[in-house]
Parts: sequence; structure tokens; C-alpha cells
Amino acid sequence: MVTRMDSSATVSPSLAERFQRLLADLGSRPVAVVGHARPDGDCIGSQVALARVLRARGHAVVCANADAVPRRLAFIVGDLTFAPAAALTGEPAAIFVDCADHLRAGEKLRARLPAPLGNIDHHLSNEGFAQHNLIDTRASATCEILARLFLDAGLPVDAATAQALYAGIVTDTGQFRFQSTTRETFLLAAELVARGARPAEIGQELYEQESPGRMELLRRFLGSFERCGGGRICIGTLPLGIFAETGTSAEDTEGLVDYARGIEGVEIGVLIEERPDGFKASLRAKDPALRLDQVAGLFGGGGHACAAGLSLRGPAAADFRSRLETALTERLQRRDADRRTS
Amino acid sequence: MVTRMDSSATVSPSLAERFQRLLADLGSRPVAVVGHARPDGDCIGSQVALARVLRARGHAVVCANADAVPRRLAFIVGDLTFAPAAALTGEPAAIFVDCADHLRAGEKLRARLPAPLGNIDHHLSNEGFAQHNLIDTRASATCEILARLFLDAGLPVDAATAQALYAGIVTDTGQFRFQSTTRETFLLAAELVARGARPAEIGQELYEQESPGRMELLRRFLGSFERCGGGRICIGTLPLGIFAETGTSAEDTEGLVDYARGIEGVEIGVLIEERPDGFKASLRAKDPALRLDQVAGLFGGGGHACAAGLSLRGPAAADFRSRLETALTERLQRRDADRRTS
Repeated sequence: MVTRMDSSATVSPSLAERFQRLLADLGSRPVAVVGHARPDGDCIGSQVALARVLRARGHAVVCANADAVPRRLAFIVGDLTFAPAAALTGEPAAIFVDCADHLRAGEKLRARLPAPLGNIDHHLSNEGFAQHNLIDTRASATCEILARLFLDAGLPVDAATAQALYAGIVTDTGQFRFQSTTRETFLLAAELVARGARPAEIGQELYEQESPGRMELLRRFLGSFERCGGGRICIGTLPLGIFAETGTSAEDTEGLVDYARGIEGVEIGVLIEERPDGFKASLRAKDPALRLDQVAGLFGGGGHACAAGLSLRGPAAADFRSRLETALTERLQRRDADRRTS
Repeated sequence: MVTRMDSSATVSPSLAERFQRLLADLGSRPVAVVGHARPDGDCIGSQVALARVLRARGHAVVCANADAVPRRLAFIVGDLTFAPAAALTGEPAAIFVDCADHLRAGEKLRARLPAPLGNIDHHLSNEGFAQHNLIDTRASATCEILARLFLDAGLPVDAATAQALYAGIVTDTGQFRFQSTTRETFLLAAELVARGARPAEIGQELYEQESPGRMELLRRFLGSFERCGGGRICIGTLPLGIFAETGTSAEDTEGLVDYARGIEGVEIGVLIEERPDGFKASLRAKDPALRLDQVAGLFGGGGHACAAGLSLRGPAAADFRSRLETALTERLQRRDADRRTS
């Protein structure tokens, strides 16, 4: 059963109730808190926060991801176990956080997990794949949903949990500047600071510990920009081999695409990462009417209206770039037509 | 008389009282709201907000700066008059905002202004140069002080004023991530959003309307990085002629220095802008104990503990780079020694 909440002012009664039912169904089982592949701040923050709260309630917990915790997010993990492919002992219940769909956990990991008991998320494209689906597409971050659920239920949000929740919100809002940032987001940030989140420390860990290689990656990404769609689309490309050349890895691409979107006159920014057998692409729009989650969906991806991603390989990747340019240009034209008629 | 307020929780009674006395002394005179040369978001935001509130009280107002409003900040100005060197008619009272000292207004402008009646600021190095000095060095921004003063006094903070105050806070906190960001900063942001500030719009105007030239300036700045002080100082240089080559201007340097500080292992980031007759330098530290305002002071500059600046020309600029490296390295060593003994 899927419930979409349209108020972010406080957690809605039905979402709170659904959370209580999820907790009740957990019983005393061990829990796998599952995040998505290539985890970002909101994913790791959500896993850490939920795992800490469940552990405080007496559950054995393990966090499971197909890929490792990015270096820059290690500071919020503390003594929790993140197990990329660990054997999950007992008969754990699986709660997915920040996963737009079941596949986002990664195929290998998914095959080892029980059927999803919980699905807590804020992605537009989440269709509800678990027994208990707690989806609020207006929340700025999955961490925002969790913070409200915990605070409303009077669950313990200690300093480390507040720090993890804050880290998720700050990354998924682009430091409080994406469309999803509301008055309530700031009130929640204030509450998390009161409970021990440290904005300056988090800011330094997330944004001021860049490796020299990442700076070189940025420099080369900036140099790769090409405009299309009448100048309204800016595409930057990371060619094969660039990670080895700059001493970086895929996790160092986080945030780069924002530079492509951030140019005057550009409506859609794109990062294309070339891979041996295909492409990964990140799409960012300034206007949510562009519904990039739908564009990504054409290529098997998904996400949010202004921030979506996809991954293609093998034969499906043929002519990818021209097909993407066509799809994005058509999307811009359709939005323009809608504006004229409305 | 100088008062430093050590609480940012709410405006202190004595600061509020001082503000009432300043308003009383204004009478019905026209007011010049004076900002500093090379104005940033907190400067323009403070000028716009104070000018709007004073205009609503019936004052004729003009905003005065030695340099023009940066393009990216034009969206908060509305119908106010900014007059780089306009004749100030009547017998205006001058209120300085966000000016660490009287000179920061610029020599030419200062010569045309009456003696400062008010001085509202948050810089550590502000020694109080006006008849009424309202200084709170713990505030994250001069806009934070003004917002508190206006809200506490029940003065009208409409949507445009809220937008200007928010823009100042977001820029001076580095998007809510510098040391000065507190729980109260977030509560204030929430209140400003409730009164009409639009975080996503402000974020797009400030950070997502970059010119292609500015991206090229960033790319070249990143390529100029050199480490010294045992790797703990990172200096990037903008050589003479780079603005012409990239189609940019001095205002496009805002924020670049944060990339130099933001590298792992770097404690102090520096941007040096070469000028025909000298240098301008921006200094940024991760640790407030480094007191960069004092280092900048050695070269006639000033600012905050973690963010300071200076400008040198003529004979005083000789050997600038080596003297700066020496001063910064000594400062790091002294901080290390203090840590060992404390």
C-alpha cells in the first residue's frame, strides 16, 4: 500500500501511524537497513539514523549497501556496521531507505535480502515496493522524513543521530537551496542543532576535505562543457580513464553536475560518465516542470523532478548521447508549449 | 561608545535600546545607508533591508557604495537607489552597515559623507567609529543583526526585506556552513521564509547564474594552486589580465578562495589577485584560532577570524607574497604551540 504525504509541516498522522505499524511488525528481529548503490549523504545519513534508533530499541542492526560508504561520509558512521556483501545472520527484516525502487539496492545485494518490510523515501518515482511504504515526496530528504518520525514518536535523537540526519538534509537540499527547502526544513535544522548536530563540522567534512585529485577532476569537468538545445542544455563529460589519471573514483563525481546546471541560460545540466560498457548520467534542472525523473525513466533511470540519474550498458547504450539530447530538447519544448497554453 | 554583544540568541536589550536611540537621533532626516567597497551579499542585503525599513518609516533614503552592486545581487535591490558617487542632497545622516572600519566605505565616498551616525556590523575588527555602534561579533552576518533588530522592534519586514536579509545570511554563512551558523541562525531563516524569503530563488540567483567566463575563471584558478607552509597553505593566483581574457570582472572572484581552503590537509586558503600597482588578497581558515583578521591587519586589512582580506599598492606591495607566506606560516606555528601548551 502506497501513501504519498503532501504536507511536510509535520509528519502526517497516517505516516506516523504507518511507522508505528512498521515498528510493531519488526518485533524483536534483527534489521538490515538497506541503502542504494553509489550512496550519497541522504542515503548514508538515513541508514545511520534509523540504525541508531533501532539499536537503541534493542534490535541487532546492520547497514547494507552495494557500494562502500564514501570517504567524505565516514565521519557520521561511528561504530555501526556497514556490510557491502556481508552474510546477514538470523532472519533479518529489511527496511529500505532513500531507494526510489527495489532495484536501487543493487542486484547482488537484493538477491540476498528478504522481501522488503519497510520503504522510507522521498523520491517522486517511488511506487511502493514494500509491505510498509512511508513516502513523502515533498520532504527535502529521506532524513527529513525520519527526523520528523523520530521526533513525533519521542524516539531518542542523540547528537550522533542528529548529526547524521542533518548531513542527509544538507546534502540533499544542496545546502538548503533546492526547491524542496521550506520553512519547516529550517525549523528541523534548528532542532537538530539543538540536539547536537554541528553545521560547521559537517560543512567542513562534506565540502572542505576535497582531495587535490577531486579538484583536478572538477577542473577537467569544467573544461569539457558543451552546450546544446539552443544553449539551454550544458553537458560535461568524464571520459574513460579520468579516475585513474586524477587519482579519484566514482564517488568523487558527487556535486559536479551542479556546475553544469549553474550557468546563466542553462536550464538542464548533465554529467555523463563514460564506462567500459556504457554510460552513467546525472541530470539536473532548474525548473521542476521539466520532470527529469520521467526523462531518466525513458532510459531505465529515475529520481526527482529536478535531479535524476540513469545507467546504461551494452546494446542499450548505443547512440545514448544523441538520444539523451533529443529527449531533453523535446522536454524543454513541451514545457515551453505548456507554458504558452496555460 | 562600543558595545560588543556576546549573545546571538536574541538581540540583547542594550543593542535593541541602542537601535531605538539611533532611530530617535535620525529624526526625519534623509539617510545615506553606506556599504563597503567591493560589496558582497551581506553588505547589499543589509543596505537594502535597512533602507526599506527606514523608507517605510518616512525617510528619504539612498544607498551609497564606492563600487556598483554585483550583477548577481541585483535581484534584491528592487526600486531602491544605489548611488556609487551620487550627490547626497539635503543633510543626510550616514549609517554604515557591514563596514569593519570607516575606511571600508572607500576614500572618495567617505570624503563626501557626514560623520557616521550609525555603525551596524559583525566584524571582529570593528572598533566602533560612529556615534551609535551596534556590533555583535557572534552574529553570522550583519543581516542577522538587522533581522533581529527589526523583528524585536516590530518594524515591517515584508517579503522583499526578508529576501534581502536572507540573501545576506546565506552568503555570509557560506550557505549555513561557517562556524557562525547557530540554531538561532536557522530559526531566523525559518522566520524570514515565513515572511516571504524564497530560498530556492535566492540560491538560483546567487549560485546558478554563473557566466561561462566565471566558470573559466574558476577553472584557471584551480589550475594555479600552489601549496606552502608544509602543505597547510594553498595559494591560488589570478594574474594580471585574467579578467579581460575570461570576460569577467573583480566581482566574479567571490567565493573562489573557498576552493583553496576546501582541500584536505589545507588549513588556510588564499586568493591573490594581481593588480597593476599591487595586490588584493583574500584569506580563509578552517580554524578560528588562526585569527586571520590579525594577519590581514599586518598588511592594513581586516575581517573575521576565519575570513579576512587586504589590499596593498605601491611600495607597500613589495615582496608581498613572501611576507604573506611567512606571516601565515608563523601564525600556524603559534597556533600549534598554543595547542601544545593548553
